[in-house]
Amino acid sequence: MWASPFVLRARLALSFKGLSYKYVEEDLSNKSDLLLSSNPTNKKVPVLIHNGKPICESQNIVQYIDEAFSSTSPALLPADPYERSLVRFWAGFIDDKLLTTWLETSKAKTEEEKVEGLKKTFAAFETLEAAFKECSMAKPFFGGDSVGYLDITFGGLLAFVRAAEARYGIRFVDASRCPLLATWVERFGELDTTKAVMPDISRLVDYANMREAKAAAADASN
Amino acid sequence: MWASPFVLRARLALSFKGLSYKYVEEDLSNKSDLLLSSNPTNKKVPVLIHNGKPICESQNIVQYIDEAFSSTSPALLPADPYERSLVRFWAGFIDDKLLTTWLETSKAKTEEEKVEGLKKTFAAFETLEAAFKECSMAKPFFGGDSVGYLDITFGGLLAFVRAAEARYGIRFVDASRCPLLATWVERFGELDTTKAVMPDISRLVDYANMREAKAAAADASN
Repeated sequence: MWASPFVLRARLALSFKGLSYKYVEEDLSNKSDLLLSSNPTNKKVPVLIHNGKPICESQNIVQYIDEAFSSTSPALLPADPYERSLVRFWAGFIDDKLLTTWLETSKAKTEEEKVEGLKKTFAAFETLEAAFKECSMAKPFFGGDSVGYLDITFGGLLAFVRAAEARYGIRFVDASRCPLLATWVERFGELDTTKAVMPDISRLVDYANMREAKAAAADASN
Repeated sequence: MWASPFVLRARLALSFKGLSYKYVEEDLSNKSDLLLSSNPTNKKVPVLIHNGKPICESQNIVQYIDEAFSSTSPALLPADPYERSLVRFWAGFIDDKLLTTWLETSKAKTEEEKVEGLKKTFAAFETLEAAFKECSMAKPFFGGDSVGYLDITFGGLLAFVRAAEARYGIRFVDASRCPLLATWVERFGELDTTKAVMPDISRLVDYANMREAKAAAADASN
């Protein structure tokens, strides 16, 4: 499923580790037997199949890739237990707070809900700005000198943030509010590895518009 | 905060690792400066402070304890990357599915919502029964011969499951539907380490009844 930030995380992790893999597209409106048998509990993409065994859930997959290929650099997670705990904490924040707040805002029905949602979303990005400072320690990536777990966790969302910015005319990662993150966005987006797997923003915009139109049509016919 | 399954996870992990620690109670209606400065993002318990540094979020804390004290047995996470991915997947299931479904059911407003919620909750416990089979491989614990990460993740909830069973007259972990889990519940509950930190069920029942009465009174005065 090309338009999934979670699939993108798995692809980014494999690519940054320099691992070759076969990418199999999945039609989520008609899920394959392979998907249903590989992820019977959640029935979701991505699934990584390695040595015939399925690994599910994007953050879990990225950790697995780092551990199963621990001798292949870069290490995605730091070695120090405390630094690992920081990385896991912020990865949880990205999915449980930033992403959740963002998705809720995109579903806001009233102007008041939208304003409130945007305020929370901006605040979440500003919190992540502080996390970048804490984790990168004045180096170019969350992971320090090279791309790490948080770069991939947040990087998977990047194209979707950009597409939303284009659709709504809003800057979520703004240089005035989030200067470090704004620089990171440019830096991460320009890496050859990122470019090779990142979906095209205008295609994502078209896809999101099409989904919104479909949802509106379904609402209208109910 | 004695009546928190998340705090209990941290205490269980420390206890099973045989580590000594200072337990500091927190009044969540009047959060201490120590809590607010240690966990400024989520402002929640538990926080583990080790070498002067705060570690937040229960699953993160348990992983930290295992990694920071990696030479202290038992190892809470398995060594094999695939087995680790399974454990992390099921730990995610416990918090994102089982616990979420259970909490939603407890807030059901209509009889129909309650019936539907209970159906989903029972299904989640049955899924966890299958996970036990997969992870324990016919041994006594999720972690195999000794208590591991999933035993602690689920074990933290155990007293709260029991208290809910007592309050509602329902068996969530029933020997006919979940025979392996039902045996596990007895086995885990009888360990000296578990007994030493597990809150008293009747005290939990009283606490839950008091909270419900308070919430009802607040609703009535709105």
